[in-house]
Amino acid sequence: MGNDGADSGLYPASRLGQAAAAAAGAHLAALLLTPGPDLRYLTGYDAHQLERLTCLAIPAAGAAGGQPFLVVPRLELPAAKASQAGGLDLEIIPWDETDDPYALVAGRLGALPGPLGLSDRMWALMVLRFRDALPGARQELASTALGGMRTRKTPAEVAALRAAGEAIDRVHARVPEWLRPGRTERQVAADIAEAIIAEGHARVDFTIVGSGPNAASPHHEVSDRVLRAGDAVVVDIGGTMPSGYCSDCTRTYVLGQPPAEFAAYYRVLRDAQQAAFSAVRPGVAAEAVDAAAREPIAAAGYGQYFVHRTGHGIGLETHEDPYIVAGNAEPLAPGMAFSIEPGIYPGPHGARIEDIVVCTEQGGERLNNASRELICVAAG
Amino acid sequence: MGNDGADSGLYPASRLGQAAAAAAGAHLAALLLTPGPDLRYLTGYDAHQLERLTCLAIPAAGAAGGQPFLVVPRLELPAAKASQAGGLDLEIIPWDETDDPYALVAGRLGALPGPLGLSDRMWALMVLRFRDALPGARQELASTALGGMRTRKTPAEVAALRAAGEAIDRVHARVPEWLRPGRTERQVAADIAEAIIAEGHARVDFTIVGSGPNAASPHHEVSDRVLRAGDAVVVDIGGTMPSGYCSDCTRTYVLGQPPAEFAAYYRVLRDAQQAAFSAVRPGVAAEAVDAAAREPIAAAGYGQYFVHRTGHGIGLETHEDPYIVAGNAEPLAPGMAFSIEPGIYPGPHGARIEDIVVCTEQGGERLNNASRELICVAAG
Repeated sequence: MGNDGADSGLYPASRLGQAAAAAAGAHLAALLLTPGPDLRYLTGYDAHQLERLTCLAIPAAGAAGGQPFLVVPRLELPAAKASQAGGLDLEIIPWDETDDPYALVAGRLGALPGPLGLSDRMWALMVLRFRDALPGARQELASTALGGMRTRKTPAEVAALRAAGEAIDRVHARVPEWLRPGRTERQVAADIAEAIIAEGHARVDFTIVGSGPNAASPHHEVSDRVLRAGDAVVVDIGGTMPSGYCSDCTRTYVLGQPPAEFAAYYRVLRDAQQAAFSAVRPGVAAEAVDAAAREPIAAAGYGQYFVHRTGHGIGLETHEDPYIVAGNAEPLAPGMAFSIEPGIYPGPHGARIEDIVVCTEQGGERLNNASRELICVAAG
Repeated sequence: MGNDGADSGLYPASRLGQAAAAAAGAHLAALLLTPGPDLRYLTGYDAHQLERLTCLAIPAAGAAGGQPFLVVPRLELPAAKASQAGGLDLEIIPWDETDDPYALVAGRLGALPGPLGLSDRMWALMVLRFRDALPGARQELASTALGGMRTRKTPAEVAALRAAGEAIDRVHARVPEWLRPGRTERQVAADIAEAIIAEGHARVDFTIVGSGPNAASPHHEVSDRVLRAGDAVVVDIGGTMPSGYCSDCTRTYVLGQPPAEFAAYYRVLRDAQQAAFSAVRPGVAAEAVDAAAREPIAAAGYGQYFVHRTGHGIGLETHEDPYIVAGNAEPLAPGMAFSIEPGIYPGPHGARIEDIVVCTEQGGERLNNASRELICVAAG
């Protein structure tokens, strides 16, 4: 997938310089980034995280700063060169099967005047080898430098998230045809997984189908439980598009007549989700959006059943900053994209409604637009 | 996916005790295992790797050893209990959104009489927080303790790999219908991805379609290159089954008449793959299988074009021990499963043939059985 997004403007060449400056601002001497969202964000190179080391090293801007370089297994050299990284002002250094790539990186960096920032998702396998190869440099997280860049999506990134939202909306539009009494959650999830790919994603990330009592477990995934008339079914699904950007959307369906109390608290939930969306605008604290979702649910007496944060940022990762949670006073800014997904789980049933929302100059824009009304599927 | 494999015998309850003993044998005081293959292997719990800490702590067996425990976000508690981990002799400890789960683990473990073994895939995010929460304990890799267990597959694991092999063989059987001049590699890869799910996988892991000159780049993935008559096309694909076990199989196809030299070296490659397979039996060094693949290729004058190792282990990870590579003197043992995938890449075309093979008491068993003869697809 090395070429994906190469000509879409998603991965501008200016980011390497911005990252070097951000590293200096975070008092890091260099960043070491293995395959994953940081590497792709900075270079467009969608490398696999494998046991062989691929690593982008970015010395911090300033007096001691050198040029960034990308170390890759020789096997990956053609793919790295063919990716957008091959068009950047970036030396690409292959290593052979018998080389020690950690020593290679350490030798190139030389003596470091400060700590190293490692990509948050770097494997322990690599963290510990870099610890041993660079014993003088304290290890910190690269997100302290890169977080500010990655949370503020460019218009091209918002467009990529919008396309992801449209794709998962198309999957939700087909969910009612798969929800039938007598089928298992797992069978429904398999249909959904196939549709996630068919509707344009490159990868299935999760297919949560929580029916009946399983709908009351917010992170239930899927089981062999057989759907029955009267079930509420929480369907929380997402994937990654060829662009690298992720989708994530939840709707709650009912098979036939809902449980007695269900319709009442579903309306509360729908209103809470709307209230949180309405609270989105630049300068508002992330936790204020969480509070806006929580207030109507608490007022209706269901506060104790909303047991998780309201949302998470989304982009090249399904979960990333900013988190929409009590205690996060970070002010929203245009370009921030995150889920708004309140839930009410009184048991033996539950419901959740989730959209991806992007903060605009004026307020918020929903990137999911399937109906948020209760969707009753015929149970006959 | 918490329940997958719960009643298949894939994840026996005895493994926690074996891991505690293996930790002691590797001179580790405890293992700390975040979501990923180690956690699933030991408990059957297929948790997502997310920013919220889920961690299985296993004190080493012996004088100072305590009981293993599993720390999970409270949100995940129902899923953890519903998974096979809930049926083990294992305390499951939830933490709340405002708790510090790293301090929780450190407090439970107490003073440690030796180093900690971290799962190889633990994110730096967690590695560094554990470093700070447990400053007295040196961090090492858990694979030094668990490698010996995970490389020797049980009959149930071999059956799961066999089912994965059959699923990806069914995808390869359909590949010829998608290979047509005028289509792009990316279009073919999308068809393959959909089929990987439709044929029974839970997840698409990779869809490499390398056509024409791209077939000469062993780790090329996919591009917008348009297929043309006379192209050789390397198709290297795999996914993860609901069981957690992975598939990985490569075949090389030709559209119409192959390039002049191609048919000759394809035969060499097929014979080399067979020679490596024939070398598999208990007690043979992993590197001897690599040498067996390399010898006929070198004898035919193509040695310089076989630029990668012969194979990698496979199981809950696509790439894991044992690696079939020069320098790995580890003797094969019954239950070891790995790829045999020599390639010849002289350019401007190339070829690779890959099967998953398991070492048996008597020799080897192929888990992929699609024809290894050159597959010529009509180019008209």
